[in-house]
This record gives sequence, C-alpha cells and structure tokens, in this order.
Amino acid sequence: MDIDSITRPTLLLNTTVARHNLETMAAKARRSNVRFRPHFKTHQSRQIGEWFRSEGVEAITVSSVEMAEYFAEAGWMDIFIAFSANRRELAAINRLAKRVRLGLLFEDPDTLDYFMLNLEAPVQVWFEADNGSLRTGIPIAETEKFVSLASHVKSPHILAGVMTHAGNTYHTQSTDEINRIYHQTLEGLQRLKQTLIKAGYAAVKISYGDTPALTLADDFCGLDEVRPGNFIFYDCCQVSYGVCSTEDIAVGVACPVIAVYPQRGQLVLYGGAVHLSKDRFEADGKTIFAYVCRPTAQGWGPALAGAVVSGLWQEHAMVDMPAALVETFRPGDLLVVLPAHSCLTVDLYDAYLTTDGEKVKIKQ
Amino acid sequence: MDIDSITRPTLLLNTTVARHNLETMAAKARRSNVRFRPHFKTHQSRQIGEWFRSEGVEAITVSSVEMAEYFAEAGWMDIFIAFSANRRELAAINRLAKRVRLGLLFEDPDTLDYFMLNLEAPVQVWFEADNGSLRTGIPIAETEKFVSLASHVKSPHILAGVMTHAGNTYHTQSTDEINRIYHQTLEGLQRLKQTLIKAGYAAVKISYGDTPALTLADDFCGLDEVRPGNFIFYDCCQVSYGVCSTEDIAVGVACPVIAVYPQRGQLVLYGGAVHLSKDRFEADGKTIFAYVCRPTAQGWGPALAGAVVSGLWQEHAMVDMPAALVETFRPGDLLVVLPAHSCLTVDLYDAYLTTDGEKVKIKQ
Repeated sequence: MDIDSITRPTLLLNTTVARHNLETMAAKARRSNVRFRPHFKTHQSRQIGEWFRSEGVEAITVSSVEMAEYFAEAGWMDIFIAFSANRRELAAINRLAKRVRLGLLFEDPDTLDYFMLNLEAPVQVWFEADNGSLRTGIPIAETEKFVSLASHVKSPHILAGVMTHAGNTYHTQSTDEINRIYHQTLEGLQRLKQTLIKAGYAAVKISYGDTPALTLADDFCGLDEVRPGNFIFYDCCQVSYGVCSTEDIAVGVACPVIAVYPQRGQLVLYGGAVHLSKDRFEADGKTIFAYVCRPTAQGWGPALAGAVVSGLWQEHAMVDMPAALVETFRPGDLLVVLPAHSCLTVDLYDAYLTTDGEKVKIKQ
Repeated sequence: MDIDSITRPTLLLNTTVARHNLETMAAKARRSNVRFRPHFKTHQSRQIGEWFRSEGVEAITVSSVEMAEYFAEAGWMDIFIAFSANRRELAAINRLAKRVRLGLLFEDPDTLDYFMLNLEAPVQVWFEADNGSLRTGIPIAETEKFVSLASHVKSPHILAGVMTHAGNTYHTQSTDEINRIYHQTLEGLQRLKQTLIKAGYAAVKISYGDTPALTLADDFCGLDEVRPGNFIFYDCCQVSYGVCSTEDIAVGVACPVIAVYPQRGQLVLYGGAVHLSKDRFEADGKTIFAYVCRPTAQGWGPALAGAVVSGLWQEHAMVDMPAALVETFRPGDLLVVLPAHSCLTVDLYDAYLTTDGEKVKIKQ
C-alpha cells in the first residue's frame, strides 16, 4: 500500500484480516451443518462477494431492494431481503422475483395479502420474529399469531420459515448476556418451528442473525440458517461489546493530520462525519467515535493506547491522546481511524483501497 | 410533487422555504454592508448555487478541496476553503489556485511555510482564530501569535484576514448565550484586526461563520464578511438551539412506513442512518434523531406533536408517537422526516426532489 499517495480520507481494507474473519465464521457454520447466508449490507461489494463464493456460499442476505438488485446483477441467484417488504417497491420486487430465488419478509397480514395478490413470480415467504429487541417483528412467544399469518401464504409462494435479528445483543453489558440472549432466542425459534410444523408447515426453517452472538457462540447447532454481516470487518462497537479485539477490525479510514495541540492533548484530522458516519460507542464511561492507529506499509498498527476520537464535525475529527503522543505527530502525517460502526462507514464510499494496494469497488 | 412516485427514502427540498431563508440572510448582509460569502457545504449543489448568484453573491466558502473543485467547475471564481490547508493536497490546491481566486486557511507556521514555498499561483491567506470552541485555530486573544504568523506570508500571496467558526454556539443552553458568544467573538476579531493593521497589514478583514449566531443577530455590523451555511435549510438541531422553528426547515426525507405498533406507541420507517445520518439532538431531556410530518401535495405539513424518531439502524427508523396517532398510519404510507443535521443528511444523496416536482442535482 502506497501511503504517500493518500491525500484525502480513504477507506482501507485489510484483506488478510477480513478473509480470516470470513473463514472463521464459514467454518463454524460448516461444522454446525447450518446454512451460512451472510448479510452483504456490511461490505456491499460484488468483488468481496466472490470471496464468499470460494467458501461455498450460494445464498445471501441484503437489507434493501436496491442492494438485492445490485447483487442479482453480480450473479447471486438466491437473495433474502431481510427488511419488511415495502409495498411501494412492488414493481422492483416483481422484477427481482422473476430473476432470482427471492426471499421476502413479513409480519403484517394486510401487507402479506397485498403481496400474495400482486406478486408476478413465486417467492420464499419469511416471517419476522421479535426476540425482545422491540424493533420489528411479531413477539416470538406469540406462536398463534405466526400460525394465523401462515394461513395467508398462498401458492405458488412458499412459507420458508421464521427469522429473527437479535438486535438486543447490541445493548448488553457482558458477553454472558449476549450468550443468554442467543440461547433464549434459539429456544423461542425452535418452539415456533415445532408449532408451525404441527400446523402443517413441515418445511419451515429457522434463521438467526447478529454478529455479537454468532461470533461468541461455540456452534450454531439447533438453527437451520445464520445471517451475520458485520463480522467480516467488525468495528469498535463490537470491541466495546467484548465480541472481538481491535486486531480483528478489517477496515480503517486513513486521515491526514491537519493540526496538533500538545498542550490540549489533542490533534485534529481531516476526516469527519461524512467520512466515518456519526455512530459512537461507550468505553470507560465516555462516548467515543473511534480508535486510531499508525499507518504501516502493511496497513496499520495496533490501536494507540489512550487515543480516542472524541468529536466529529462534517469534515474534522478530534483525537484525544496523551500530550507526549501528540508531540510525535505533525500536520501532513496520517492516522488510520478504526470506525465505530463499519457498515455505516463503508456505505459512505465507492471503493476500498486494500492493504495490498488494490482498489475494490463498493455498490458498483 | 407526485407522492405516489416515491418508493424509497427520498430527499425532498421545499424551494419556497429555502429561498426565503436565503433572501432573509442575504438582505441582512446587504443592510449591514458586510460581504456575504455563504458556505456551500450544506447544499453542495451547483443548481442551488445559482440562487445565490441571483442575490448578488460572487464569493463562496467550501469545506474541502474536492468541494472547491466542484464549484470551480460550476464557474465560481472566488472560493475560500474554510478548512486547514492540507499539505497532502498540494497538487490539487495548485491546480485550483491557477484557476480561481483561492483562499486558504492556516494556523501553523510550518504548514504556512510549506505552502509559501510550494504554491505555484497566488492565494489569499486566511488565519483561523479559535473563539473558545477548542476545535481548530489560534486562541483569539493571543494576538502576538497572529502577528508572528503574518510574517510568514510571502509575496505574491496576500494576508487576506482572520476568520473564525464559532462552533461553541452549537453547545448552548439559550439564545442569549449564542448572542453573548457572537458579541464576544466580534470584539476579539476586531482587536485582532486592529493589532494586525498596526503591524502593517492594512488590508486585513475579519470573517465570521456559524448559522446560530448569524440567524439571531440583528445585523452584522463590525464584521467584514459572514459565512453561514446551514441557514439555507436549517434542521432539528437548529430548532433545539432556539434558532428557528420547524417551519423554517427546507429539507426532509420522505420515508415509507413499514410497520405500525399502536400498543407500543411506535411505528417503523424505511429510512435509516444511511438515509438520514446518525446525528441527534436533545429535547425535553431526551436524545432525538428527527421530527416527522405528514406529506402533502405541496411538500409536508407541520411537525407532528409528540412524534419523534427515537432510534436509527442502517435502514430502519423508529418513531415514537401517541397510540392514537400511530393508528392513523398503515404500512405503505409515507412520512417526511425532518433531519437532525441537514448538512450530513444532504451529503448522503445525489439529488433533491423539490416540492415543485423537479430534480436538483447534488455534487454532480
């Protein structure tokens, strides 16, 4: 990687780390004999998608119709849109359904009826269960509601199964709590599956997503499918949940130093909310936007001890660090910022610069 | 505006409100006989730039070299980059300096020396004063540092003046506090100007930026130049500072309703952090991401009482509202979300849909 060529905030990708993250998750799914249907909303890149094919992945998850269109264009033939089907996008959904094996997500009988009436090609119907995260879905314990909803699925469409995104693992105080949520959710999904099988839906599957629990779980036994996404890159939020370490983070943003203030114990980077997103995490009782590292010829070094991004504006980042550390930097140097939330950061770019010096396209 | 044509989160622009915001600010600058050098980082659109030309604006502010390149391409010939000159961008800065009357910002003698040595065309040199915001700049009271820095400016380059961005007006509890910061900063800039004039820099100007203070000030007397940006659209943050009302907000994001939960007093929108940014504000002791309105044929109605965006994910927004209000919505309806921070929201799009039904390009 040619560090000197970097003039503006630039999204870096450490392919070695990302491929290791991928291999670890794919191997765990294989060992568990569970289908690995990775969520592609994190990387949003057809080139990175090819790495997954090398791991035997044939079916993927996306979070929008737009993303499904992009990956269908890249040759993916089995795509699940893990986002409540939006009737305003019927025309685009019909075009997709004619082209790929399409999974759609429902929780509302009226919306399901609307699609059953208006779809022009068969789809896989998934129901969303809410494991207590209180975002979307039918409460996982209300099994009768799922049976009732199932009666709205009309041939040629098929009830494929029940999925959940256990978003509450992102609001925990310990890894024990993440594991507890995982096992409770797994039990809830299994009860739902038994109920639906008894009601005559013999083929239903259960599908689980979220990086914290799927990273920490020893195996995925008891599930039919897993849909992690963030794990390919991880980020500082995942570090703050105890899910990974900063060494597992595979993306960073190279940012020029534009001002140094040893007396304040601060320096300022060219790299703001439009380059990093404005997500944040808690560590040591403080709100933090990112950790920072020194760039190296191979990518970047370890996260600098005692250094955090404490503020973000449109184009500026404020880095707090010990005065002695500030004094080692001068305007024109580079720092690599490890993002709070890699999915949101990546979404702001149209390409990665890999630590091997190659360009990898995003959404194009 | 054809509401039925909206299928996905769409950035809306109320041109009547935006033009009124522009006219009000431009008129105040004219009455004060102060140069109006608006910051274009908020709208980032050459088409909206033309509205400013109609108001007699000839000189603009931007926050990156990239933005300067874009507006130079659109025919703007007097551009100030209000962001510490980044030596890694020397080549691009030299190309710009040969093409337009370019203003660059400095605070560090070494960086200034580097540019004096390597610039290939004359530039206007501006110094950044820190009014106590503690982001970038030389503390405004340390007048001798400015005089010392001025001695580094070499012909053919000209010391144009001193500027400040009073970012601390964004961290206030009352409009009185904003006014107090404005007047203190004005006095500090005037002292600096007198000091530099006495030191032989007779032509130096003082330039002030920030929407909160410039909106609230009765006039701009005593300044040479003002650089507000956000005022063209305003946003919920500005409402929370008491600077404007929700009726003054000129941009919104039309978002489809995808799920309704009357019992929880919530509904969920298709429209997340990648459509709104993840900035936030405080109101009634709570952290809020946005207000919401009903769409109308002319744009959108008033902000719905008691309704706030309380959570954002990559693609989802959670709206809290009274149960009786939730019951008036169904999946497939639209809501218009008034952003927390319009600059960051606009940066996520490549076009506005105006309330007159026209498309206005962004960054293209």
